[in-house]
Amino acid sequence: MTLRDLSVEDLVDRARSGDRRALGRVLSWIEAGGARADEVTAVTHPLAGDSHVVGITGSPGAGKSTLTGQLVHVLCERGRRPAVLAVDPSSPLTGGAILGDRIRMDDLAGEAAFIRSVATRGHSGGLALSVPGSVRVFDSAGYDPVIIETVGVGQVEVDVVGAADTTVVVVTPGWGDAVQANKAGLLEVADIFVVNKADRPGADDARRDLELMLDLSHVTGAEDPTGRRPPIIMTTATEGRGAPDLWQAIADHAAHLRRTGHLAARQADRLRAEVLNRIDQALEGRARELLDQEDGRTVLDRVVARELSPTAAGRQLIDSMLR
Amino acid sequence: MTLRDLSVEDLVDRARSGDRRALGRVLSWIEAGGARADEVTAVTHPLAGDSHVVGITGSPGAGKSTLTGQLVHVLCERGRRPAVLAVDPSSPLTGGAILGDRIRMDDLAGEAAFIRSVATRGHSGGLALSVPGSVRVFDSAGYDPVIIETVGVGQVEVDVVGAADTTVVVVTPGWGDAVQANKAGLLEVADIFVVNKADRPGADDARRDLELMLDLSHVTGAEDPTGRRPPIIMTTATEGRGAPDLWQAIADHAAHLRRTGHLAARQADRLRAEVLNRIDQALEGRARELLDQEDGRTVLDRVVARELSPTAAGRQLIDSMLR
Repeated sequence: MTLRDLSVEDLVDRARSGDRRALGRVLSWIEAGGARADEVTAVTHPLAGDSHVVGITGSPGAGKSTLTGQLVHVLCERGRRPAVLAVDPSSPLTGGAILGDRIRMDDLAGEAAFIRSVATRGHSGGLALSVPGSVRVFDSAGYDPVIIETVGVGQVEVDVVGAADTTVVVVTPGWGDAVQANKAGLLEVADIFVVNKADRPGADDARRDLELMLDLSHVTGAEDPTGRRPPIIMTTATEGRGAPDLWQAIADHAAHLRRTGHLAARQADRLRAEVLNRIDQALEGRARELLDQEDGRTVLDRVVARELSPTAAGRQLIDSMLR
Repeated sequence: MTLRDLSVEDLVDRARSGDRRALGRVLSWIEAGGARADEVTAVTHPLAGDSHVVGITGSPGAGKSTLTGQLVHVLCERGRRPAVLAVDPSSPLTGGAILGDRIRMDDLAGEAAFIRSVATRGHSGGLALSVPGSVRVFDSAGYDPVIIETVGVGQVEVDVVGAADTTVVVVTPGWGDAVQANKAGLLEVADIFVVNKADRPGADDARRDLELMLDLSHVTGAEDPTGRRPPIIMTTATEGRGAPDLWQAIADHAAHLRRTGHLAARQADRLRAEVLNRIDQALEGRARELLDQEDGRTVLDRVVARELSPTAAGRQLIDSMLR
């Protein structure tokens, strides 16, 4: 009997008992979306909820992959079973170091860990659906923590990573990296900051920039609702320095969330966002269908003829869709 | 009587007769969204449709702002009244050259042109609505061409710029810029390529890379449906070199679109996308409302309690919304 013949329940069972090929197949189904992904979600959702979800983001070239690899290494040494969901950027702005980093991460991981890369190109909507599904699969299979690593370029990536239990924002020494992270909305979602490449000139300046921005964010009321100030961890990932400190900071944050009762609130927020994304995407599909049907085409023709404004057309079509 | 007291119709009338302050106010309304933006759209939509819409995109640092400024300069010299809608990137990846470029563009423009910058930070959804609205305002006020300039980072930006009548993709000499533009999906939307900074080493290589990719795209069937191969224009925007060639290429493409009947099709596609965006965003708003109401909260509570999967919850809520 090959994997192909197994039911979703059986495959999830195998993944839970450590079958990596079965786990890979279940993840593929989630990534492909559709009915089978929904079935996987239905099976894994009741089994999940125990793993700590860590999001790691920062600008390209900040050394996130190397840092994540070191973190995985530390976790495996301590007898944990971490999973990494690496959201591969395909923006025009990234360099060519990704594959190399990824291979290095696999080397460090060993059998206890599971690394999965997903491409984002043209799939930001799909990504918003598949990432929670993949995290749930890892969670139900006993991987803990589940680390989502991504480049913080797009809003979807910020949303996905920002919805983790613990969000780590990585900056590097150099002109304005911290300032740019702030601009991109990463300051608000960060639970922990990392200044990576801390052996380089300007590392202390980067730290000071972050401290200053944290001071200012307290003034402007953007502080953590739990009254906690994000710590700043200095790392040199290429040499493995600082990774144990980063894990300690993550563990401290997890304990803080549990103590304050915010862990459950974060999980509930994440589920709410996932349900909302599913609704949004299904509704978008329905709207596209409507525009391709006769009613929709008639309305569009009037817009093109400039008899009806796009706003009025939108309202009319929405009214015809909703109860 | 101040501008504040004028009706939308009166303000649009003033903008059409050359009142730049009135035009600025109407644009602000569009950018703010809401009922007044809808009113502006209702008033301007019947008046618009004559301007040629040019999208200019490419990676940060490619010199797009400088190039756009030079293009505006050429257009003004030839008695045209161009408008520029500069979609300002606020990603963590861009350098600090933007403001300087923008000022240089204003210097070059003079009174015949109108330059408007809009920020994208956290407003990618809003941007997808406001850009067509702003283009329509410029169009109805007699500005022609209307140039949308943006960084091709996010999907929204690619969508907005790719929906222009003529889409210009700017690359620079250097490692893989053309390859990265291809990855980002810009190859498919480009009607014209520009190799800017053509005085630098590697300019010919960049051109060859593009030619090769165009050859390959013909093989794979991604060619222009009108059977036209995008030309590659070499420019050195900082010295104004190549801007007249770029304008000629744009004018040629406009003539090609008119000759083949594709201009009307592009405008219709753009209006369809705008209506669809309006529907999507309104539906997203409704979905959020639903989740905050008792029915929605009850369903979410069951998801959080792991009694119901996010997929099933989504389906249930969609069914309760749609006719």
